[in-house]
Amino acid sequence: MSELPVLRLRPKSKPQAIRHGFPWVFADEAVLDRRTRNLEPGGFAVLEDAERRPMALVTVNPHSKIVARVMDADPAAQIDGDWLRARLRRALQMRERLYDAPFYRLIHAEADGLPGLIVDRFGDAAVMQPNAAWADRMATDLADAIADIAGVTSVILNGQGRARTLEGLEERMEILLGMAPDAPVPVRMNGATYLADLMGGQKTGLFYDQRPNQAFAQKLAQGAEVLDVFSHVGGFGLAALAAGAARATCIDGSATALELAVGGAGLMDMGDRLEIMQSDAFKAMEQMAEEGRRFDLVVCDPPAFAPSKSALDAGLRAYERVAKLAAPLVAPGGYLVLCSCSHAADLTQFRNVSARGIGRGGRRAVLIHAGQAGPDHPILPQLAETGYLKALFFRLDG
Amino acid sequence: MSELPVLRLRPKSKPQAIRHGFPWVFADEAVLDRRTRNLEPGGFAVLEDAERRPMALVTVNPHSKIVARVMDADPAAQIDGDWLRARLRRALQMRERLYDAPFYRLIHAEADGLPGLIVDRFGDAAVMQPNAAWADRMATDLADAIADIAGVTSVILNGQGRARTLEGLEERMEILLGMAPDAPVPVRMNGATYLADLMGGQKTGLFYDQRPNQAFAQKLAQGAEVLDVFSHVGGFGLAALAAGAARATCIDGSATALELAVGGAGLMDMGDRLEIMQSDAFKAMEQMAEEGRRFDLVVCDPPAFAPSKSALDAGLRAYERVAKLAAPLVAPGGYLVLCSCSHAADLTQFRNVSARGIGRGGRRAVLIHAGQAGPDHPILPQLAETGYLKALFFRLDG
Repeated sequence: MSELPVLRLRPKSKPQAIRHGFPWVFADEAVLDRRTRNLEPGGFAVLEDAERRPMALVTVNPHSKIVARVMDADPAAQIDGDWLRARLRRALQMRERLYDAPFYRLIHAEADGLPGLIVDRFGDAAVMQPNAAWADRMATDLADAIADIAGVTSVILNGQGRARTLEGLEERMEILLGMAPDAPVPVRMNGATYLADLMGGQKTGLFYDQRPNQAFAQKLAQGAEVLDVFSHVGGFGLAALAAGAARATCIDGSATALELAVGGAGLMDMGDRLEIMQSDAFKAMEQMAEEGRRFDLVVCDPPAFAPSKSALDAGLRAYERVAKLAAPLVAPGGYLVLCSCSHAADLTQFRNVSARGIGRGGRRAVLIHAGQAGPDHPILPQLAETGYLKALFFRLDG
Repeated sequence: MSELPVLRLRPKSKPQAIRHGFPWVFADEAVLDRRTRNLEPGGFAVLEDAERRPMALVTVNPHSKIVARVMDADPAAQIDGDWLRARLRRALQMRERLYDAPFYRLIHAEADGLPGLIVDRFGDAAVMQPNAAWADRMATDLADAIADIAGVTSVILNGQGRARTLEGLEERMEILLGMAPDAPVPVRMNGATYLADLMGGQKTGLFYDQRPNQAFAQKLAQGAEVLDVFSHVGGFGLAALAAGAARATCIDGSATALELAVGGAGLMDMGDRLEIMQSDAFKAMEQMAEEGRRFDLVVCDPPAFAPSKSALDAGLRAYERVAKLAAPLVAPGGYLVLCSCSHAADLTQFRNVSARGIGRGGRRAVLIHAGQAGPDHPILPQLAETGYLKALFFRLDG
């Protein structure tokens, strides 16, 4: 057995949480002396309780507020290719049961037993985001294991974003295996076709998390005039068209994202029913209200306005403003879908500001559905706050 | 204009909540003098703020903790047949958009603008539960309006349950219109066929609220051995069979409910794949664990263990016990669905005791989905606690 360093919990910290499945050790819970502070980020260690009893195998990162993440409840586990393959196999098994086609989030970090690692699968290609130091270090081993288990032929590492900064990791963009696709990849979801730019897009190129919410919106879309605000590559707009919407109008600030929406609608042979508008979403909604435009279904899926606790108040005000501007655009008896992907704003807070915004927009509403990320985004019950995505479906007064 | 009595808010109570859509006035918020205490339960009144400004048309019930419920934001509204028809038309319109067949909750009380009234539709028949005094008094008008708008030919009044007791209403069971069906009614839902006993069953005879959760469970059921604990008429078990489960075992304390499950499976021509067990659920689970039985999918949908705040602690312990007994029955890598229909237990509380129970049952789990009641059970954002139904889908360790 290899001689791993030891990380010990402080006497006052509670080992029960870890024993019951909580996967993180925060900096103030561990004994951090000169030796542990010099542990290499992404290396492995044995976590011990204050009485020196081994508790788990962890990965350490002295540069992160989360100094250790549990890799395996067995302190003697070996984190090697076989171990990675076993975790991947378990994750794949669930996705294959849930989805007909190989387009899904394959690995959702802690809940799939691979802390900090995100892998989205697009048919023969996988895009990974190693947001913890261990995964960044073992990226090549991970790519091999993903190719082996899932049968993909190319693996792209997209190392960008806030989560990496918190871990002290630098930006990185690499092809780890195979070739990068030379064009955006068509992805079928809910009967719509999306174009995902695996190399240049936001996050991994497409947001799989909204799949069940887009499916729910489709029930409201038949024959409808639909407005998709903050549309990205047309997530809700193209889903609505696939479900028989009369017309979808997509607003986004990014010309690139809107071009992909047009491309997707073209592949669906529905380009004539898609209208795009490159604009600041707030300005566009104000202008449409002045013009008296009304839609049967309005969806607002903005970027995370409250990415952290310090941004919560400002973020909640922004969500309320979205609701206030969107409500007047909804036809009598129509539907308004308000989304938040902010970790910091919980469901109750988001529901309250949404309802208040609708009221300030001069309308009353009932809530018919509160959606979340799909099951390819599992969460640990002990980390319930990772249930970040909220999609509230309101029916507005007649 | 008719001269309605006036109910006035106390100076210290906050009229803003009502103005923003909160639909209830509690006893300690209103001026209750001898006159108002003598108002007839179920009569109408004009709600005024402390400065005598009319705020809304309300229905009053001095015998209830909720002394007034808002019927209409317009204090001059006339609650007559036309008014009822307008509310019913609005509710029907949404259900017809959402469902292919006329089987759904047609009226879900406050959120459908008809306070305290529940109406479930079963094709040509409707079952109503008037859980507020006004609806009890106007039951015949309501039946006429329902028949007129929804085109049903029979309307049954099922006046039982705790909600009526809280309103001071007595038990009542009547045919208000047409004929009672002379046999249980077949209901198609998620591809399964259920038998609903509209006259003798629990609540209105069938629980429509679990429809989306049964649909989600179907994704996990293909080829599976399924255990449906507290099965009632086979809600999850028959859904699983319709989705290709190898076998479903239904446990319930009620022989009548199990007979209906067998009848439903017979109509689906799948009776050979259904096993029933009339037993106390706790005992049955203990016994199955002793026998070493394992299922790919276990669903526990117990009655409300925490129907009120005073019953919360005992209720949460009961939910934890269900989780603890069910977890060992799940095969490695299988799925466990834990449901709660208790208003008093919120999602966080229920998730926590469920996770703890699974842990005490010797297993670890991730949460892949948290379901709720379907959109035919809308809620007022101001009454978010009416989101009573929770269905947690866990994947258990391998």
